[in-house]
Amino acid sequence: MILAKAKGAGGLSMTAGLILIGLGPSGISNMTRAAISAATQADIRLYEAYTALWSESALAQLETEIGEITKVMRPEVEEPSQMLSLAKEKSVALLVVGDPLQATTHVDLQLQAQEAGIDCEIIHGISITGLVTGAVGLSNYKFGRQTTLTYPYGGWIATSPLEVIALNRIQGLHTLCLLDLDPTGAGTGNQKPMQPEDAQTAIMAMAKKLEDSIDEDINDSNLQRLKFEASQKIIAELNDLDVVICTDMGGKNQSISYLPLKDLHICETGGLHCLVIPAKLSEVEQKALIRWTKQ
Amino acid sequence: MILAKAKGAGGLSMTAGLILIGLGPSGISNMTRAAISAATQADIRLYEAYTALWSESALAQLETEIGEITKVMRPEVEEPSQMLSLAKEKSVALLVVGDPLQATTHVDLQLQAQEAGIDCEIIHGISITGLVTGAVGLSNYKFGRQTTLTYPYGGWIATSPLEVIALNRIQGLHTLCLLDLDPTGAGTGNQKPMQPEDAQTAIMAMAKKLEDSIDEDINDSNLQRLKFEASQKIIAELNDLDVVICTDMGGKNQSISYLPLKDLHICETGGLHCLVIPAKLSEVEQKALIRWTKQ
Repeated sequence: MILAKAKGAGGLSMTAGLILIGLGPSGISNMTRAAISAATQADIRLYEAYTALWSESALAQLETEIGEITKVMRPEVEEPSQMLSLAKEKSVALLVVGDPLQATTHVDLQLQAQEAGIDCEIIHGISITGLVTGAVGLSNYKFGRQTTLTYPYGGWIATSPLEVIALNRIQGLHTLCLLDLDPTGAGTGNQKPMQPEDAQTAIMAMAKKLEDSIDEDINDSNLQRLKFEASQKIIAELNDLDVVICTDMGGKNQSISYLPLKDLHICETGGLHCLVIPAKLSEVEQKALIRWTKQ
Repeated sequence: MILAKAKGAGGLSMTAGLILIGLGPSGISNMTRAAISAATQADIRLYEAYTALWSESALAQLETEIGEITKVMRPEVEEPSQMLSLAKEKSVALLVVGDPLQATTHVDLQLQAQEAGIDCEIIHGISITGLVTGAVGLSNYKFGRQTTLTYPYGGWIATSPLEVIALNRIQGLHTLCLLDLDPTGAGTGNQKPMQPEDAQTAIMAMAKKLEDSIDEDINDSNLQRLKFEASQKIIAELNDLDVVICTDMGGKNQSISYLPLKDLHICETGGLHCLVIPAKLSEVEQKALIRWTKQ
Protein backbone atom coordinates (compact mmCIF):
# COMPACT_ATOMS: atom_id res chain seq x y z
CA MET A 1 0.00 0.00 0.00
CA ILE A 2 1.34 3.41 -0.95
CA LEU A 3 0.58 6.08 1.59
CA ALA A 4 0.26 9.64 0.40
CA LYS A 5 2.74 11.91 2.11
CA ALA A 6 1.36 14.43 4.55
CA LYS A 7 0.75 17.80 2.95
CA GLY A 8 2.84 20.27 4.93
CA ALA A 9 2.49 24.03 4.99
CA GLY A 10 3.21 24.68 1.34
CA GLY A 11 4.84 21.26 1.22
CA LEU A 12 4.67 18.46 -1.27
CA SER A 13 1.25 17.11 -2.15
CA MET A 14 2.35 14.40 -4.61
CA THR A 15 3.77 10.90 -4.35
CA ALA A 16 4.98 10.94 -7.95
CA GLY A 17 5.51 13.79 -10.37
CA LEU A 18 7.76 16.68 -11.20
CA ILE A 19 8.27 19.68 -8.91
CA LEU A 20 10.05 22.71 -10.31
CA ILE A 21 11.50 24.50 -7.31
CA GLY A 22 12.96 28.00 -7.34
CA LEU A 23 16.04 28.32 -5.14
CA GLY A 24 16.28 32.10 -5.31
CA PRO A 25 19.75 33.63 -5.45
CA SER A 26 22.97 32.61 -3.67
CA GLY A 27 22.00 30.36 -0.74
CA ILE A 28 19.43 28.54 1.39
CA SER A 29 18.49 31.64 3.42
CA ASN A 30 16.90 33.01 0.22
CA MET A 31 14.75 29.89 -0.28
CA THR A 32 11.12 30.06 0.76
CA ARG A 33 9.72 27.80 3.44
CA ALA A 34 7.65 26.02 0.76
CA ALA A 35 10.76 25.42 -1.37
CA ILE A 36 12.83 23.99 1.50
CA SER A 37 9.97 21.77 2.58
CA ALA A 38 9.20 20.42 -0.90
CA ALA A 39 12.86 19.84 -1.76
CA THR A 40 13.38 17.95 1.49
CA GLN A 41 10.35 15.73 0.92
CA ALA A 42 11.07 14.87 -2.72
CA ASP A 43 12.36 11.36 -3.51
CA ILE A 44 14.92 12.68 -5.99
CA ARG A 45 16.60 16.09 -6.19
CA LEU A 46 18.12 17.34 -9.43
CA TYR A 47 19.98 20.67 -9.67
CA GLU A 48 19.80 22.48 -13.01
CA ALA A 49 23.36 23.74 -13.41
CA TYR A 50 23.45 25.66 -16.68
CA THR A 51 21.09 28.68 -16.62
CA ALA A 52 22.33 30.09 -13.28
CA LEU A 53 24.50 28.94 -10.40
CA TRP A 54 25.00 28.86 -6.67
CA SER A 55 28.54 28.55 -5.29
CA GLU A 56 29.81 25.07 -4.47
CA SER A 57 29.81 25.87 -0.74
CA ALA A 58 26.18 27.07 -0.86
CA LEU A 59 25.24 23.86 -2.67
CA ALA A 60 27.10 21.75 -0.12
CA GLN A 61 25.19 23.44 2.71
CA LEU A 62 21.92 22.86 0.87
CA GLU A 63 22.75 19.19 0.40
CA THR A 64 23.49 18.84 4.13
CA GLU A 65 20.06 20.22 4.96
CA ILE A 66 17.75 18.75 2.34
CA GLY A 67 19.55 15.61 1.15
CA GLU A 68 21.56 14.42 -1.81
CA ILE A 69 21.48 16.46 -5.03
CA THR A 70 22.44 15.39 -8.57
CA LYS A 71 23.51 17.99 -11.14
CA VAL A 72 21.83 17.99 -14.55
CA MET A 73 22.78 19.98 -17.63
CA ARG A 74 20.96 21.25 -20.71
CA PRO A 75 20.62 17.91 -22.58
CA GLU A 76 18.82 16.23 -19.65
CA VAL A 77 16.41 19.17 -19.32
CA GLU A 78 15.70 19.77 -23.00
CA GLU A 79 15.42 16.04 -23.81
CA PRO A 80 13.71 15.12 -20.57
CA SER A 81 12.49 11.59 -21.33
CA GLN A 82 14.58 10.10 -18.52
CA MET A 83 13.49 12.73 -16.01
CA LEU A 84 9.85 12.28 -16.97
CA SER A 85 10.06 8.47 -16.72
CA LEU A 86 11.43 8.84 -13.21
CA ALA A 87 8.64 11.28 -12.36
CA LYS A 88 6.02 8.65 -13.22
CA GLU A 89 7.19 6.56 -10.27
CA LYS A 90 8.69 9.04 -7.84
CA SER A 91 8.53 12.66 -6.80
CA VAL A 92 11.34 14.39 -8.69
CA ALA A 93 12.39 17.90 -7.69
CA LEU A 94 14.22 20.00 -10.25
CA LEU A 95 16.01 22.76 -8.35
CA VAL A 96 16.47 25.93 -10.39
CA VAL A 97 18.43 28.99 -9.23
CA GLY A 98 16.10 32.01 -9.10
CA ASP A 99 12.51 31.42 -10.19
CA PRO A 100 11.79 28.09 -11.92
CA LEU A 101 9.73 29.52 -14.79
CA GLN A 102 11.86 32.49 -15.82
CA ALA A 103 13.60 30.55 -18.57
CA THR A 104 11.46 29.38 -21.48
CA THR A 105 13.17 26.00 -21.31
CA HIS A 106 11.49 25.28 -17.96
CA VAL A 107 8.06 26.38 -19.22
CA ASP A 108 8.60 23.93 -22.07
CA LEU A 109 9.50 21.18 -19.58
CA GLN A 110 6.33 21.93 -17.62
CA LEU A 111 4.26 21.62 -20.81
CA GLN A 112 5.95 18.33 -21.75
CA ALA A 113 5.25 16.90 -18.29
CA GLN A 114 1.60 17.90 -18.52
CA GLU A 115 1.30 16.36 -22.01
CA ALA A 116 2.77 13.11 -20.65
CA GLY A 117 0.12 13.11 -17.92
CA ILE A 118 2.65 13.76 -15.18
CA ASP A 119 1.74 15.99 -12.25
CA CYS A 120 3.83 19.14 -12.31
CA GLU A 121 3.99 21.49 -9.34
CA ILE A 122 5.68 24.88 -9.34
CA ILE A 123 7.25 26.47 -6.28
CA HIS A 124 8.36 29.98 -7.06
CA GLY A 125 11.60 31.58 -5.95
CA ILE A 126 13.16 35.04 -5.83
CA SER A 127 14.25 35.97 -9.32
CA ILE A 128 17.21 38.24 -9.98
CA THR A 129 15.00 40.19 -12.39
CA GLY A 130 12.64 41.23 -9.59
CA LEU A 131 15.44 41.91 -7.13
CA VAL A 132 18.03 43.98 -9.00
CA THR A 133 15.80 46.84 -10.12
CA GLY A 134 14.92 47.85 -6.57
CA ALA A 135 18.24 46.85 -5.04
CA VAL A 136 20.11 49.39 -7.17
CA GLY A 137 17.36 51.93 -6.45
CA LEU A 138 15.83 52.46 -9.88
CA SER A 139 12.10 52.62 -10.46
CA ASN A 140 10.71 49.29 -11.53
CA TYR A 141 8.25 51.09 -13.79
CA LYS A 142 11.04 52.58 -15.86
CA PHE A 143 12.59 49.30 -16.97
CA GLY A 144 12.05 48.22 -20.55
CA ARG A 145 12.68 44.83 -22.09
CA GLN A 146 15.52 42.85 -20.50
CA THR A 147 18.32 41.17 -22.41
CA THR A 148 21.27 38.82 -21.99
CA LEU A 149 24.83 39.51 -23.08
CA THR A 150 26.25 36.31 -24.50
CA TYR A 151 29.73 35.06 -25.22
CA PRO A 152 30.66 35.26 -28.91
CA TYR A 153 29.87 31.59 -29.72
CA GLY A 154 32.26 30.53 -32.48
CA GLY A 155 33.15 34.17 -33.10
CA TRP A 156 29.57 35.21 -33.92
CA ILE A 157 28.61 38.57 -32.41
CA ALA A 158 24.88 39.16 -31.92
CA THR A 159 24.06 42.88 -31.90
CA SER A 160 20.52 42.41 -30.60
CA PRO A 161 21.34 43.04 -26.90
CA LEU A 162 22.76 46.49 -27.74
CA GLU A 163 19.74 47.19 -29.95
CA VAL A 164 17.45 46.34 -27.02
CA ILE A 165 19.41 48.73 -24.78
CA ALA A 166 19.30 51.43 -27.46
CA LEU A 167 15.56 51.14 -28.06
CA ASN A 168 14.87 51.19 -24.31
CA ARG A 169 17.05 54.25 -23.75
CA ILE A 170 15.44 56.31 -26.48
CA GLN A 171 12.12 55.65 -24.72
CA GLY A 172 13.62 56.74 -21.38
CA LEU A 173 13.74 53.15 -20.09
CA HIS A 174 16.46 51.37 -18.12
CA THR A 175 17.73 47.95 -19.21
CA LEU A 176 18.61 44.91 -17.10
CA CYS A 177 21.28 42.81 -18.84
CA LEU A 178 21.89 39.33 -17.53
CA LEU A 179 25.33 37.92 -18.30
CA ASP A 180 25.92 34.59 -19.98
CA LEU A 181 27.66 31.83 -18.07
CA ASP A 182 28.14 29.32 -20.84
CA PRO A 183 31.19 29.97 -23.05
CA THR A 184 30.22 27.24 -25.53
CA GLY A 185 26.46 27.83 -25.59
CA ALA A 186 25.92 24.07 -25.33
CA GLY A 187 24.97 23.96 -21.66
CA THR A 188 26.95 20.79 -21.08
CA GLY A 189 29.46 21.84 -18.44
CA ASN A 190 32.34 24.11 -17.50
CA GLN A 191 29.99 27.02 -16.89
CA LYS A 192 31.97 30.22 -16.45
CA PRO A 193 30.05 33.37 -15.54
CA MET A 194 30.89 36.32 -17.79
CA GLN A 195 32.94 38.93 -15.94
CA PRO A 196 32.55 42.75 -16.03
CA GLU A 197 35.46 43.01 -18.46
CA ASP A 198 33.82 40.45 -20.78
CA ALA A 199 30.63 42.52 -20.71
CA GLN A 200 32.53 45.65 -21.71
CA THR A 201 34.28 43.79 -24.53
CA ALA A 202 30.98 42.29 -25.69
CA ILE A 203 29.17 45.65 -25.79
CA MET A 204 32.06 47.35 -27.58
CA ALA A 205 32.18 44.55 -30.17
CA MET A 206 28.42 44.87 -30.68
CA ALA A 207 28.74 48.62 -31.17
CA LYS A 208 31.46 48.15 -33.75
CA LYS A 209 29.42 45.60 -35.67
CA LEU A 210 26.21 47.63 -35.38
CA GLU A 211 27.98 50.73 -36.67
CA ASP A 212 29.21 48.80 -39.70
CA SER A 213 25.86 47.20 -40.41
CA ILE A 214 23.06 49.66 -39.68
CA ASP A 215 21.37 50.58 -42.85
CA GLU A 216 19.55 53.86 -43.21
CA ASP A 217 17.64 52.45 -46.13
CA ILE A 218 15.69 50.00 -43.97
CA ASN A 219 13.27 52.61 -42.73
CA ASP A 220 9.93 51.49 -44.03
CA SER A 221 8.14 51.84 -40.68
CA ASN A 222 8.06 54.16 -37.68
CA LEU A 223 9.55 51.38 -35.56
CA GLN A 224 12.44 50.85 -38.00
CA ARG A 225 13.17 54.56 -38.07
CA LEU A 226 13.15 54.73 -34.27
CA LYS A 227 15.48 51.71 -34.08
CA PHE A 228 17.85 53.35 -36.54
CA GLU A 229 17.88 56.59 -34.55
CA ALA A 230 18.34 54.67 -31.28
CA SER A 231 21.28 52.66 -32.63
CA GLN A 232 23.05 55.76 -33.91
CA LYS A 233 22.48 57.47 -30.57
CA ILE A 234 23.84 54.65 -28.40
CA ILE A 235 26.94 54.31 -30.55
CA ALA A 236 27.61 58.03 -30.13
CA GLU A 237 27.01 57.90 -26.35
CA LEU A 238 28.87 54.72 -25.50
CA ASN A 239 32.07 56.42 -24.38
CA ASP A 240 30.21 58.49 -21.80
CA LEU A 241 27.73 55.84 -20.72
CA ASP A 242 27.50 55.13 -16.98
CA VAL A 243 26.34 51.67 -15.97
CA VAL A 244 25.62 49.71 -12.80
CA ILE A 245 27.40 46.40 -12.31
CA CYS A 246 25.79 44.09 -9.74
CA THR A 247 27.69 41.15 -8.29
CA ASP A 248 26.38 38.16 -6.32
CA MET A 249 23.05 39.87 -5.69
CA GLY A 250 21.00 38.62 -2.76
CA GLY A 251 24.04 37.10 -1.06
CA LYS A 252 26.13 38.30 1.87
CA ASN A 253 28.86 39.57 -0.46
CA GLN A 254 26.51 41.41 -2.80
CA SER A 255 28.19 44.43 -4.36
CA ILE A 256 27.00 47.21 -6.64
CA SER A 257 29.11 49.75 -8.56
CA TYR A 258 28.03 52.71 -10.66
CA LEU A 259 30.75 53.59 -13.12
CA PRO A 260 31.52 54.34 -16.76
CA LEU A 261 31.07 51.40 -19.13
CA LYS A 262 34.62 51.94 -20.32
CA ASP A 263 35.92 51.27 -16.77
CA LEU A 264 34.20 47.89 -16.35
CA HIS A 265 37.48 46.10 -17.03
CA ILE A 266 38.94 47.38 -13.75
CA CYS A 267 36.11 45.83 -11.68
CA GLU A 268 36.84 42.89 -9.44
CA THR A 269 36.20 39.53 -11.00
CA GLY A 270 34.62 36.40 -9.56
CA GLY A 271 30.99 35.63 -8.83
CA LEU A 272 27.81 36.06 -10.84
CA HIS A 273 27.14 39.49 -12.32
CA CYS A 274 24.44 41.43 -14.05
CA LEU A 275 24.49 44.87 -15.58
CA VAL A 276 21.96 47.70 -15.51
CA ILE A 277 22.08 50.37 -18.21
CA PRO A 278 20.19 53.37 -16.85
CA ALA A 279 18.28 55.82 -19.01
CA LYS A 280 17.41 59.33 -17.82
CA LEU A 281 17.28 59.41 -14.01
CA SER A 282 14.74 60.96 -11.66
CA GLU A 283 15.98 62.84 -8.59
CA VAL A 284 15.43 59.88 -6.23
CA GLU A 285 17.09 57.55 -8.73
CA GLN A 286 20.11 59.84 -8.92
CA LYS A 287 20.43 59.86 -5.14
CA ALA A 288 20.07 56.10 -5.12
CA LEU A 289 22.74 55.45 -7.76
CA ILE A 290 25.29 57.86 -6.33
CA ARG A 291 25.57 55.46 -3.36
CA TRP A 292 27.34 53.00 -5.65
CA THR A 293 30.00 55.38 -6.92
CA LYS A 294 33.54 54.54 -5.87
CA GLN A 295 34.89 57.39 -3.73
CA MET B 1 25.69 46.22 28.79
CA ILE B 2 23.95 45.72 25.48
CA LEU B 3 24.67 42.37 23.91
CA ALA B 4 24.54 42.10 20.16
CA LYS B 5 22.04 39.51 19.04
CA ALA B 6 23.43 36.36 17.53
CA LYS B 7 23.62 36.53 13.77
CA GLY B 8 21.53 33.62 12.51
CA ALA B 9 21.60 32.11 9.04
CA GLY B 10 20.52 35.17 7.14
CA GLY B 11 19.12 36.51 10.39
CA LEU B 12 19.22 39.91 11.97
CA SER B 13 22.62 41.48 12.56
CA MET B 14 21.48 44.72 14.20
CA THR B 15 20.30 45.78 17.65
CA ALA B 16 18.77 48.99 16.32
CA GLY B 17 17.84 50.07 12.83
CA LEU B 18 15.34 49.56 10.06
CA ILE B 19 14.87 46.26 8.24
CA LEU B 20 12.78 46.25 5.09
CA ILE B 21 11.50 42.70 4.74
CA GLY B 22 9.84 41.26 1.65
CA LEU B 23 6.96 38.93 2.50
CA GLY B 24 6.47 37.59 -1.01
CA PRO B 25 2.92 36.90 -2.14
CA SER B 26 -0.06 35.48 -0.24
CA GLY B 27 1.32 33.73 2.87
CA ILE B 28 4.18 32.64 5.13
CA SER B 29 5.11 29.62 2.98
CA ASN B 30 6.30 32.12 0.34
CA MET B 31 8.58 33.93 2.81
CA THR B 32 12.28 33.13 2.73
CA ARG B 33 14.06 31.64 5.70
CA ALA B 34 15.98 34.93 6.10
CA ALA B 35 12.73 36.93 6.13
CA ILE B 36 11.02 34.73 8.73
CA SER B 37 14.11 34.78 10.93
CA ALA B 38 14.63 38.55 10.74
CA ALA B 39 10.95 39.34 11.28
CA THR B 40 10.85 37.07 14.32
CA GLN B 41 13.95 38.65 15.86
CA ALA B 42 12.95 42.29 15.31
CA ASP B 43 11.82 44.31 18.33
CA ILE B 44 8.95 45.91 16.41
CA ARG B 45 7.06 44.65 13.36
CA LEU B 46 5.16 47.05 11.10
CA TYR B 47 3.09 45.85 8.14
CA GLU B 48 2.85 48.20 5.16
CA ALA B 49 -0.80 47.87 4.18
CA TYR B 50 -1.32 50.11 1.16
CA THR B 51 0.84 49.01 -1.80
CA ALA B 52 -0.17 45.32 -1.69
CA LEU B 53 -1.99 43.00 0.68
CA TRP B 54 -2.14 39.57 2.24
CA SER B 55 -5.50 38.20 3.38
CA GLU B 56 -6.47 38.75 7.01
CA SER B 57 -6.17 35.01 7.71
CA ALA B 58 -2.65 34.87 6.23
CA LEU B 59 -1.68 37.85 8.39
CA ALA B 60 -3.17 36.22 11.48
CA GLN B 61 -1.11 33.08 10.85
CA LEU B 62 2.00 35.19 10.36
CA GLU B 63 1.36 37.01 13.63
CA THR B 64 0.99 33.69 15.45
CA GLU B 65 4.38 32.59 14.18
CA ILE B 66 6.53 35.71 14.30
CA GLY B 67 4.84 37.91 16.91
CA GLU B 68 2.63 40.98 17.04
CA ILE B 69 2.30 43.15 13.92
CA THR B 70 1.07 46.75 13.62
CA LYS B 71 -0.39 48.03 10.35
CA VAL B 72 0.97 51.26 8.88
CA MET B 73 -0.39 53.25 5.95
CA ARG B 74 1.06 55.69 3.43
CA PRO B 75 1.43 58.74 5.74
CA GLU B 76 3.59 56.82 8.25
CA VAL B 77 5.83 55.52 5.45
CA GLU B 78 6.15 58.69 3.42
CA GLU B 79 6.60 60.92 6.50
CA PRO B 80 8.66 58.41 8.44
CA SER B 81 10.02 60.57 11.27
CA GLN B 82 8.28 58.46 13.93
CA MET B 83 9.44 55.18 12.38
CA LEU B 84 13.00 56.45 12.08
CA SER B 85 13.05 57.71 15.69
CA LEU B 86 11.99 54.26 16.84
CA ALA B 87 14.69 52.69 14.66
CA LYS B 88 17.37 54.67 16.49
CA GLU B 89 16.62 52.71 19.67
CA LYS B 90 15.20 49.41 18.46
CA SER B 91 15.23 47.05 15.52
CA VAL B 92 12.16 47.93 13.48
CA ALA B 93 10.99 45.58 10.73
CA LEU B 94 8.80 47.00 7.98
CA LEU B 95 7.03 44.06 6.35
CA VAL B 96 6.19 44.66 2.71
CA VAL B 97 4.16 42.27 0.53
CA GLY B 98 6.31 41.11 -2.41
CA ASP B 99 9.81 42.57 -2.62
CA PRO B 100 10.56 45.50 -0.30
CA LEU B 101 12.25 47.71 -2.91
CA GLN B 102 9.86 47.35 -5.84
CA ALA B 103 7.99 50.53 -4.96
CA THR B 104 9.93 53.80 -5.20
CA THR B 105 8.44 54.86 -1.88
CA HIS B 106 10.47 52.17 -0.09
CA VAL B 107 13.70 53.11 -1.89
CA ASP B 108 13.05 56.65 -0.70
CA LEU B 109 12.55 55.38 2.87
CA GLN B 110 15.84 53.49 2.64
CA LEU B 111 17.62 56.67 1.50
CA GLN B 112 16.06 58.72 4.32
CA ALA B 113 17.17 56.15 6.90
CA GLN B 114 20.71 56.20 5.55
CA GLU B 115 20.77 60.01 5.59
CA ALA B 116 19.65 59.94 9.23
CA GLY B 117 22.54 57.61 10.04
CA ILE B 118 20.23 54.67 10.73
CA ASP B 119 21.28 51.16 9.74
CA CYS B 120 18.99 49.86 7.01
CA GLU B 121 18.97 46.20 6.01
CA ILE B 122 17.08 44.76 3.07
CA ILE B 123 15.70 41.24 2.94
CA HIS B 124 14.30 40.52 -0.48
CA GLY B 125 11.09 38.66 -1.22
CA ILE B 126 9.35 37.11 -4.21
CA SER B 127 7.87 39.87 -6.30
CA ILE B 128 4.73 39.42 -8.37
CA THR B 129 6.59 41.01 -11.29
CA GLY B 130 9.13 38.17 -11.39
CA LEU B 131 6.53 35.48 -10.81
CA VAL B 132 3.66 36.22 -13.17
CA THR B 133 5.59 36.27 -16.44
CA GLY B 134 6.74 32.66 -16.08
CA ALA B 135 3.63 31.44 -14.27
CA VAL B 136 1.43 32.29 -17.24
CA GLY B 137 4.06 30.79 -19.56
CA LEU B 138 5.23 33.83 -21.50
CA SER B 139 8.88 34.53 -22.22
CA ASN B 140 10.36 36.90 -19.70
CA TYR B 141 12.49 38.44 -22.46
CA LYS B 142 9.44 39.58 -24.36
CA PHE B 143 7.99 41.79 -21.64
CA GLY B 144 8.26 45.53 -22.08
CA ARG B 145 7.71 48.23 -19.50
CA GLN B 146 5.15 47.38 -16.80
CA THR B 147 2.29 49.62 -15.75
CA THR B 148 -0.46 49.97 -13.14
CA LEU B 149 -4.13 50.48 -13.88
CA THR B 150 -5.48 52.96 -11.35
CA TYR B 151 -8.93 53.89 -10.15
CA PRO B 152 -10.19 57.15 -11.67
CA TYR B 153 -9.27 59.38 -8.70
CA GLY B 154 -11.83 62.17 -8.56
CA GLY B 155 -13.01 61.27 -12.06
CA TRP B 156 -9.59 61.84 -13.66
CA ILE B 157 -8.70 59.18 -16.25
CA ALA B 158 -4.99 58.74 -16.95
CA THR B 159 -4.40 57.31 -20.42
CA SER B 160 -0.73 56.52 -19.82
CA PRO B 161 -1.24 52.82 -18.90
CA LEU B 162 -2.94 52.16 -22.25
CA GLU B 163 -0.19 54.10 -24.03
CA VAL B 164 2.42 51.88 -22.34
CA ILE B 165 0.53 48.77 -23.49
CA ALA B 166 0.22 50.18 -27.02
CA LEU B 167 3.91 51.07 -27.32
CA ASN B 168 4.94 47.65 -25.99
CA ARG B 169 2.64 45.81 -28.38
CA ILE B 170 3.84 47.61 -31.47
CA GLN B 171 7.35 46.45 -30.50
CA GLY B 172 6.11 42.86 -30.06
CA LEU B 173 6.32 43.07 -26.27
CA HIS B 174 3.92 41.79 -23.62
CA THR B 175 2.76 44.06 -20.77
CA LEU B 176 2.27 43.26 -17.11
CA CYS B 177 -0.41 45.51 -15.60
CA LEU B 178 -0.70 45.64 -11.84
CA LEU B 179 -4.10 46.68 -10.53
CA ASP B 180 -4.63 49.50 -8.06
CA LEU B 181 -6.01 48.72 -4.63
CA ASP B 182 -6.58 52.21 -3.35
CA PRO B 183 -9.86 53.79 -4.52
CA THR B 184 -8.96 57.20 -3.06
CA GLY B 185 -5.26 57.26 -3.98
CA ALA B 186 -4.47 58.53 -0.47
CA GLY B 187 -3.19 55.26 0.95
CA THR B 188 -4.89 55.85 4.26
CA GLY B 189 -7.21 52.86 4.55
CA ASN B 190 -10.12 50.92 3.10
CA GLN B 191 -7.91 49.38 0.45
CA LYS B 192 -10.05 47.59 -2.14
CA PRO B 193 -8.24 45.65 -4.85
CA MET B 194 -9.47 46.52 -8.35
CA GLN B 195 -11.49 43.66 -9.84
CA PRO B 196 -11.35 42.28 -13.41
CA GLU B 197 -14.49 44.22 -14.31
CA ASP B 198 -12.91 47.44 -13.01
CA ALA B 199 -9.86 46.78 -15.18
CA GLN B 200 -12.04 46.35 -18.26
CA THR B 201 -13.92 49.56 -17.48
CA ALA B 202 -10.66 51.42 -16.85
CA ILE B 203 -9.08 50.31 -20.15
CA MET B 204 -12.22 51.10 -22.13
CA ALA B 205 -12.41 54.57 -20.55
CA MET B 206 -8.74 55.15 -21.38
CA ALA B 207 -9.33 54.10 -24.98
CA LYS B 208 -12.25 56.50 -25.30
CA LYS B 209 -10.25 59.38 -23.89
CA LEU B 210 -7.16 58.52 -25.93
CA GLU B 211 -9.22 58.38 -29.12
CA ASP B 212 -10.61 61.85 -28.40
CA SER B 213 -7.25 63.32 -27.51
CA ILE B 214 -4.55 61.87 -29.75
CA ASP B 215 -3.22 64.51 -31.97
CA GLU B 216 -1.66 63.66 -35.30
CA ASP B 217 0.06 67.04 -35.30
CA ILE B 218 2.36 66.11 -32.40
CA ASN B 219 4.72 64.10 -34.56
CA ASP B 220 7.98 65.93 -34.34
CA SER B 221 10.05 62.84 -33.52
CA ASN B 222 10.28 59.18 -34.50
CA LEU B 223 9.16 58.23 -30.98
CA GLN B 224 6.09 60.51 -31.17
CA ARG B 225 5.14 59.08 -34.54
CA LEU B 226 5.50 55.52 -33.23
CA LYS B 227 3.39 56.39 -30.17
CA PHE B 228 0.70 57.85 -32.40
CA GLU B 229 0.66 54.75 -34.61
CA ALA B 230 0.62 52.48 -31.54
CA SER B 231 -2.30 54.32 -29.95
CA GLN B 232 -4.38 54.18 -33.12
CA LYS B 233 -3.60 50.47 -33.46
CA ILE B 234 -4.58 49.50 -29.91
CA ILE B 235 -7.84 51.42 -30.13
CA ALA B 236 -8.70 49.53 -33.33
CA GLU B 237 -7.74 46.15 -31.81
CA LEU B 238 -9.31 46.50 -28.38
CA ASN B 239 -12.49 44.62 -29.23
CA ASP B 240 -10.53 41.54 -30.30
CA LEU B 241 -7.80 41.74 -27.68
CA ASP B 242 -7.18 38.59 -25.61
CA VAL B 243 -5.73 39.11 -22.15
CA VAL B 244 -4.59 37.00 -19.19
CA ILE B 245 -6.11 37.74 -15.81
CA CYS B 246 -4.13 36.38 -12.85
CA THR B 247 -5.70 36.08 -9.41
CA ASP B 248 -4.04 35.53 -6.02
CA MET B 249 -0.77 34.48 -7.66
CA GLY B 250 1.61 32.41 -5.58
CA GLY B 251 -1.15 31.25 -3.25
CA LYS B 252 -3.03 27.95 -3.04
CA ASN B 253 -6.04 29.43 -4.83
CA GLN B 254 -4.04 31.01 -7.64
CA SER B 255 -6.04 31.16 -10.86
CA ILE B 256 -5.23 32.24 -14.41
CA SER B 257 -7.68 32.87 -17.28
CA TYR B 258 -6.97 33.71 -20.91
CA LEU B 259 -9.96 35.47 -22.41
CA PRO B 260 -11.11 38.47 -24.42
CA LEU B 261 -10.70 41.82 -22.67
CA LYS B 262 -14.37 42.47 -23.31
CA ASP B 263 -15.30 39.40 -21.20
CA LEU B 264 -13.34 40.44 -18.10
CA HIS B 265 -16.56 41.57 -16.42
CA ILE B 266 -17.78 37.97 -16.19
CA CYS B 267 -14.68 36.85 -14.23
CA GLU B 268 -15.01 35.90 -10.60
CA THR B 269 -14.32 38.69 -8.18
CA GLY B 270 -12.42 38.69 -4.90
CA GLY B 271 -8.70 38.54 -4.25
CA LEU B 272 -5.75 40.41 -5.71
CA HIS B 273 -5.43 40.47 -9.48
CA CYS B 274 -3.03 41.47 -12.19
CA LEU B 275 -3.43 41.52 -15.93
CA VAL B 276 -1.09 40.50 -18.73
CA ILE B 277 -1.62 41.93 -22.22
CA PRO B 278 0.20 39.62 -24.63
CA ALA B 279 1.74 40.76 -27.89
CA LYS B 280 2.50 38.34 -30.73
CA LEU B 281 2.98 34.82 -29.34
CA SER B 282 5.62 32.21 -30.09
CA GLU B 283 4.56 28.58 -30.52
CA VAL B 284 5.51 27.61 -26.95
CA GLU B 285 3.77 30.71 -25.63
CA GLN B 286 0.61 29.80 -27.52
CA LYS B 287 0.64 26.30 -26.04
CA ALA B 288 1.25 27.79 -22.61
CA LEU B 289 -1.62 30.30 -22.79
CA ILE B 290 -4.16 27.88 -24.22
CA ARG B 291 -4.03 26.08 -20.84
CA TRP B 292 -5.84 29.02 -19.30
CA THR B 293 -8.76 29.11 -21.73
CA LYS B 294 -12.13 28.26 -20.22
CA GLN B 295 -13.43 25.10 -21.89
